[in-house]
Amino acid sequence: MSSDQRHDERYLARGVSASKAEVHAAIARQDPGLFPGAFCKVVEDALTGQADHCLIIHADGAGTKSSLAYLAWMEGLGDQVWSGIAQDSLAMNLDDCACVGALGPYLVSNTIGRNAKRIPGKVIAGIVDGYQRMCDLLSDHGIDCRMTGGETADVGDLVRTVIVDSTVTTRLRRADVIDAGRMAPGDVIVGFSSTGQASWEDRPNSGIGSNGLTGARHELLGAGYRTRYPESYAPEVDPALVYCGALSLHDPLPGDVVSVGAALLSPTRTYLPLVKRLLAEVPRADLHGLIHCSGGGQSKIVKFGAHGRPHGNRYVKDALFPVPPLFQAIKDASRQEWAGMYGVYNMGHRLEAIVPGDRAQACIAVASACRIEARVVGRVEDRGAPGNEVVVRTAHGEFRYS
Amino acid sequence: MSSDQRHDERYLARGVSASKAEVHAAIARQDPGLFPGAFCKVVEDALTGQADHCLIIHADGAGTKSSLAYLAWMEGLGDQVWSGIAQDSLAMNLDDCACVGALGPYLVSNTIGRNAKRIPGKVIAGIVDGYQRMCDLLSDHGIDCRMTGGETADVGDLVRTVIVDSTVTTRLRRADVIDAGRMAPGDVIVGFSSTGQASWEDRPNSGIGSNGLTGARHELLGAGYRTRYPESYAPEVDPALVYCGALSLHDPLPGDVVSVGAALLSPTRTYLPLVKRLLAEVPRADLHGLIHCSGGGQSKIVKFGAHGRPHGNRYVKDALFPVPPLFQAIKDASRQEWAGMYGVYNMGHRLEAIVPGDRAQACIAVASACRIEARVVGRVEDRGAPGNEVVVRTAHGEFRYS
Repeated sequence: MSSDQRHDERYLARGVSASKAEVHAAIARQDPGLFPGAFCKVVEDALTGQADHCLIIHADGAGTKSSLAYLAWMEGLGDQVWSGIAQDSLAMNLDDCACVGALGPYLVSNTIGRNAKRIPGKVIAGIVDGYQRMCDLLSDHGIDCRMTGGETADVGDLVRTVIVDSTVTTRLRRADVIDAGRMAPGDVIVGFSSTGQASWEDRPNSGIGSNGLTGARHELLGAGYRTRYPESYAPEVDPALVYCGALSLHDPLPGDVVSVGAALLSPTRTYLPLVKRLLAEVPRADLHGLIHCSGGGQSKIVKFGAHGRPHGNRYVKDALFPVPPLFQAIKDASRQEWAGMYGVYNMGHRLEAIVPGDRAQACIAVASACRIEARVVGRVEDRGAPGNEVVVRTAHGEFRYS
Repeated sequence: MSSDQRHDERYLARGVSASKAEVHAAIARQDPGLFPGAFCKVVEDALTGQADHCLIIHADGAGTKSSLAYLAWMEGLGDQVWSGIAQDSLAMNLDDCACVGALGPYLVSNTIGRNAKRIPGKVIAGIVDGYQRMCDLLSDHGIDCRMTGGETADVGDLVRTVIVDSTVTTRLRRADVIDAGRMAPGDVIVGFSSTGQASWEDRPNSGIGSNGLTGARHELLGAGYRTRYPESYAPEVDPALVYCGALSLHDPLPGDVVSVGAALLSPTRTYLPLVKRLLAEVPRADLHGLIHCSGGGQSKIVKFGAHGRPHGNRYVKDALFPVPPLFQAIKDASRQEWAGMYGVYNMGHRLEAIVPGDRAQACIAVASACRIEARVVGRVEDRGAPGNEVVVRTAHGEFRYS
């Protein structure tokens, strides 16, 4: 058994499947939408019936990052963690939509399920406030994002603490859709750093999004949390895999100036203001793909590109950003293989643009104006066989995903 | 302390607030939308910018009915319970939208959170299939309802079993909005039975929706479930309030031919085909209000009507349907006051139309064509003071809600 298999088993043992094969099987019958190669499902605009427009109705959430927020909140890290969870839930969603070229107006509805025995009204108020702050921030950048309502349900018999999901509806011209199916050999891959402090952020970002948090939480944090907060994890999981790390939320993150708690809870960056500028500076026809490296991390792109062509793409990534301290800490704590790390976490950039080589400099210049580091991290080659493949080439070795 | 207060405390002790006061406080700052008196929030059509149209983006779910489905599924009642949960999640949502006069197209996105340790892929497949069946059923009645996608997340650290939420986006002309703020003295209240077998149903409905299920489950079912399925309830709740009834899912429901399990899991009826006919037969100008008696039961209407007028409405309901066996069983098991029962459950009709008296017969005829019993259950009076009030007058006594 390889270490990677071993790691995959640790995931499954915690009830999390990175590949979501079962889920994909369950929805296999569903219509793939108008642009089967696009990053999100794009459907007919049945609301107006206009054939030249389309809709994206997209659901995503903060996942188990809210369990981490609960720990931090109980441990005195303050109410503002809940505002961050709203940002996580919304950014994971909006950044997906942006990858299809949708720039709003975005209409947001949320679904919050809570255990009222653990989560008082002020937490809900903090989450609701976080959504509004995010809308206000985007508005400052000319991006129209509106709360349309939602549902907050007292469902303690279902939810241990609190779950925060968002659904975003947006509409665009079909001609404006960025169809990642068009990513093709000859393109380069520009990565936009997930760390640092973008011009619209008030503190540096650790780089983490809202995926891989179940693993990160349990691998980094120590057993004290297991005893003190049984409401923060599934009791079905082998205790040896629950909070099996050595750190506390208050400990400094190795190699960084922030605490472990602050790094893990660093709210998911939204790249929307950058994408908006990108769409103004680079012709859509040359934006062959925008990929949000969420679940699947640096291998996410393998599901896209070469749509309908006999040969798949090989995405060679051989100039990635240095590994940010938080991901290094997760790697060190979990002792998992690097291949597993790159296949789950973004490891340094959470957005990438796939463009002809002569557009790379424009992408990097846009990022620079946003105070986000960017670089050509790789390129697209002809795989010479059906199906796509990702090759991640780093100082730690070469890893393949297909 | 009144028995009603005692009952309310039983709810709160289970972590469920029927009034949701805390939640309402948390969202108080939010914009009330274009029609503050309407049954659902109605917002500008920011997708097209057309001033004569509006949108409804509505979130709701099956709530803790999925915990009941889990029990039943574990106890061998079969996989089809999951299809019913999809119907619950969707009907609770669509029937709300219909109360504003929106008849589709409805675009549905769902958010399913599961504990993969308890809920295998075939359950997700059953839920997904249930959504599609519901869309197909509605299509047979000329109602366009489409799945646009969704998110299924493995979040065992947050969710004990499975949670199933839906978000529906729909659009209509502003002139077509049914604004329940227009309900006024002189109107009559026509109730549409929640029981029996509508022409589009394949078996009789017990009358239950997807609200009040936490109470119903714990009051009816016996302690054996507490021991066998700790994953089906919040461990924070006083054990004396967990499965404190005397029945099993397989027991016959007193006064009925079906089992307790089948009655409790009876999928939430959708009234959409009836509402569609109603809108064809009764001028919208005369449909002053359509009320979905979900959370709040027969008192739900108190939040609507007399919008902006100095005197509130008094909704007198003195000719309600006989209490269906399931609600009688819940009443008997919980020994709660009737006031609490009428303030939580629909008690016989889950949809009501508020119309001028001379339109009542048309409403009843439409229902009859759908094989749904209907009757004038009450009327609207001038309360003579600010604020609305509901007076429920039954053989069991008179109950007031304000």
